[in-house]
Amino acid sequence: MAKTDKDAPARPVARLPKGMRDIGADELRQREAMLEKIRAVYERYGFEPLETPAFEYTDALGKFLPDQDRPNEGVFSFQDEDEQWLSLRYDLTAPLARYVAENYQDMPKPFRRYATGSVYRNEKPGPGRFRQFTQFDADTVGAESVAADAEMCMLAADTLEALGIPRGQYIVKVNNRKVLDGIMESVGIDLAAAQTKLAVLRSLDKLDKFDTKDVRLLLGPGRKDESGDFTKGAGLDAKQIDAVMDFVSRPFAKATREVTAGLEPTQLYRDGMAELAAMSELLSAGGYGEDRIRIDVSVVRGLEYYTGPVFEAELLIPAKDEKGNPVRFGSVGGGGRYDDLVARFTGQKVPATGFSIGVSRLQAALNLIGRAPAPTAGPVVVTVMDKDQIATYQKLVQTLREAGIPAELYLGNPKKFGRQLEYADKRGAPVAVIQGSNERAAGQVILKDLIEGAKAAAAIKDNREWKETRPAQVSVNEADLVAEVRAILARHT
Amino acid sequence: MAKTDKDAPARPVARLPKGMRDIGADELRQREAMLEKIRAVYERYGFEPLETPAFEYTDALGKFLPDQDRPNEGVFSFQDEDEQWLSLRYDLTAPLARYVAENYQDMPKPFRRYATGSVYRNEKPGPGRFRQFTQFDADTVGAESVAADAEMCMLAADTLEALGIPRGQYIVKVNNRKVLDGIMESVGIDLAAAQTKLAVLRSLDKLDKFDTKDVRLLLGPGRKDESGDFTKGAGLDAKQIDAVMDFVSRPFAKATREVTAGLEPTQLYRDGMAELAAMSELLSAGGYGEDRIRIDVSVVRGLEYYTGPVFEAELLIPAKDEKGNPVRFGSVGGGGRYDDLVARFTGQKVPATGFSIGVSRLQAALNLIGRAPAPTAGPVVVTVMDKDQIATYQKLVQTLREAGIPAELYLGNPKKFGRQLEYADKRGAPVAVIQGSNERAAGQVILKDLIEGAKAAAAIKDNREWKETRPAQVSVNEADLVAEVRAILARHT
Repeated sequence: MAKTDKDAPARPVARLPKGMRDIGADELRQREAMLEKIRAVYERYGFEPLETPAFEYTDALGKFLPDQDRPNEGVFSFQDEDEQWLSLRYDLTAPLARYVAENYQDMPKPFRRYATGSVYRNEKPGPGRFRQFTQFDADTVGAESVAADAEMCMLAADTLEALGIPRGQYIVKVNNRKVLDGIMESVGIDLAAAQTKLAVLRSLDKLDKFDTKDVRLLLGPGRKDESGDFTKGAGLDAKQIDAVMDFVSRPFAKATREVTAGLEPTQLYRDGMAELAAMSELLSAGGYGEDRIRIDVSVVRGLEYYTGPVFEAELLIPAKDEKGNPVRFGSVGGGGRYDDLVARFTGQKVPATGFSIGVSRLQAALNLIGRAPAPTAGPVVVTVMDKDQIATYQKLVQTLREAGIPAELYLGNPKKFGRQLEYADKRGAPVAVIQGSNERAAGQVILKDLIEGAKAAAAIKDNREWKETRPAQVSVNEADLVAEVRAILARHT
Repeated sequence: MAKTDKDAPARPVARLPKGMRDIGADELRQREAMLEKIRAVYERYGFEPLETPAFEYTDALGKFLPDQDRPNEGVFSFQDEDEQWLSLRYDLTAPLARYVAENYQDMPKPFRRYATGSVYRNEKPGPGRFRQFTQFDADTVGAESVAADAEMCMLAADTLEALGIPRGQYIVKVNNRKVLDGIMESVGIDLAAAQTKLAVLRSLDKLDKFDTKDVRLLLGPGRKDESGDFTKGAGLDAKQIDAVMDFVSRPFAKATREVTAGLEPTQLYRDGMAELAAMSELLSAGGYGEDRIRIDVSVVRGLEYYTGPVFEAELLIPAKDEKGNPVRFGSVGGGGRYDDLVARFTGQKVPATGFSIGVSRLQAALNLIGRAPAPTAGPVVVTVMDKDQIATYQKLVQTLREAGIPAELYLGNPKKFGRQLEYADKRGAPVAVIQGSNERAAGQVILKDLIEGAKAAAAIKDNREWKETRPAQVSVNEADLVAEVRAILARHT
């Protein structure tokens, strides 16, 4: 504990909430550029924006998060003055279902909306895993046809390409929950026993993170992790585990448009496989080959509410982390069909399907592989030589701004001039503007090209030589300020 | 209570949380355009974006909201797993103070950041008054000079003009808390009695909403409103009230650069007046005349944390509500200097000043006066005549999208063709694309100009005439789809 003055009120400690982070200028500008590109694709697909609030009544959101270890957590909840429980949204789909149920009569059907914003998960934070992150969703509500699901996969592929990820460096994988449910039926799992069914799905969802051995443990008796924490298993016997693991490793054959299960197919399985075949046909016809969108029966997706097709977008670009270890990015987006989510409210089935980009995760991935756009330069900084001439300097700033050039007056204590140039450097300013009394009398200003200057400084070792040559510095007429600054900016772009 | 089936689980009711709202496509696109314009001005001023989380530790946010009737409310709060209290941010300034205190060593000083996002207030909702709304802030931290405050006022004026509000139709009012504090000293109010001081400020803050009579009651014994609710007064005597009310009604004289108080001036009063005079000089020099930025000693601003200059941006455009009653928009933005907010954490004074646009409120105002941009047209809708040709229709959609034209396939049940055209209308589609088997065989598509069609439909009364002429409908070669659709779109822009 820090020592505190008994009489003074205790000072709060300036600290970020656990699992939260601040996002700085470069990352925000980059994200803004990404959101703009995603938005353009979604709009081209005819989706319309909708914004719902950051929180909803807890019962309206429902609980569909995959975190079974903390069944009453996963979300941030609080009570309003009427003692009703509210929760911060954990995704953008559950609020959409509430919106649709509330406004069904008045909306165009199908209803096609996109939404972007922060979602919040009360989960254990870790490296790169935060409690607030950005998603960008598109959903079609009121369309039963798998054409709507196929379109979501095309949207996913087009969006990733618009973000600069070339073909071959990403894959959109497609599966169908009915297929997995059918396989469970075939191996003798009672689907009415929701706990077992969910445990199987969650185990399979770990296939891209865990070894086969560990997934088998999760399907069977359970698994103890490195820290000693035990996760209860789904309780399947060895034969059931063999059959399930065998199935999910098989490829979808384009010729026969199915996966040979080696098991007695049930009706659910047949339905699911028929939907996958129909999607595969639409995707081929649309020119989306298996290099972009591929059927893969091992895909699960974590959320509980899916009822049919599920999709997952994955980056295939090889990458290494700061320590040089190879990195698997895993899923950067996903989605699927959730025909029962609106029915939770209305009792009437409303077919719906959607796709969600994990913007924060995708951005982190693009940065790791050096595909993110370069940061923007800072503003031109007008320095202060004479404190009583602030209004004059302010005018120079205004002239630049009016010409559309980002510019600012140095607003700190102007006593130490060197500190002003340090500030300009720290801001990434391309140009510093300087005017002393001599320049002012002559109607001139000095422009210091800070980018050129930094290069010159690196080349010149002698301090005297520096002072004599004053590289990257020119005196220009005040009337030419805008033109001369523009000329320097043009040199560096 | 609704009747429920005993065996079925109770269904949640689809409803928005109290005081919250959903925002549809037109309003969102409009807001996006506004944010873009505001961002451009802020960037031109050399501010850099920063995003802090949606919630903070409650003690880090502090309590500075003006809602004294519910001292422990005003914010939405909840506990994390460590039982620490968290609150949704009620503005963007308190989180900035936390950020600065946490990162002071590493940041360029002065630190100039902008931020936009939702803020949350647990207040009584009313017409046009919601619990979640958007702000857009710029702040300069580490600048003591009133040049930084003057710049905030210029920023406010430039931003409103960038949003299409001409000079003369808005005003940025400036005051200084030191002046008001000084006046209180002069009339014998002990500033150490924080409750009285705040009560006086809050009473004066009501000047733009209440009659003079009511403000006098608030300054004095208290006031009972129409509903019978009693608000405790500041407890000033009649002479004190006279003096204060007299002062705030006086103009700032440009010639003498002060307000004649008619009271014995204290040092605080003199300091405040000197700062106002300095700002007035900088503003004049910058060409910001009293038609844009004006000093007005009646301005208070609700938040507690201001320590010096305060600003308020107000629309002056005359407007009427839906019932034809004249509307006063009141403040659409404001800000001020808050030199003690970072010191809450560090104990060291860090001078800071900022301006915040109330984006939601400003947007509502612009809509009321018809200054908001027109809504965008919907996507081209490709209809489905033959269900087994979905892949063919999907290709038409793709061709349009690849040409950058927003387009979609009708994904509802295609049985009733009329419903598809109704859907296209509801979506605001400019063109519907139709292809039956005849057209397909001939390599053609029918383009229905829905905007022209609506006009023609309004002009033609006779159903037979309609069927014979089929206005606004052309048959074109499939190969010319993009060019022909573009031609129709061009006709309507």
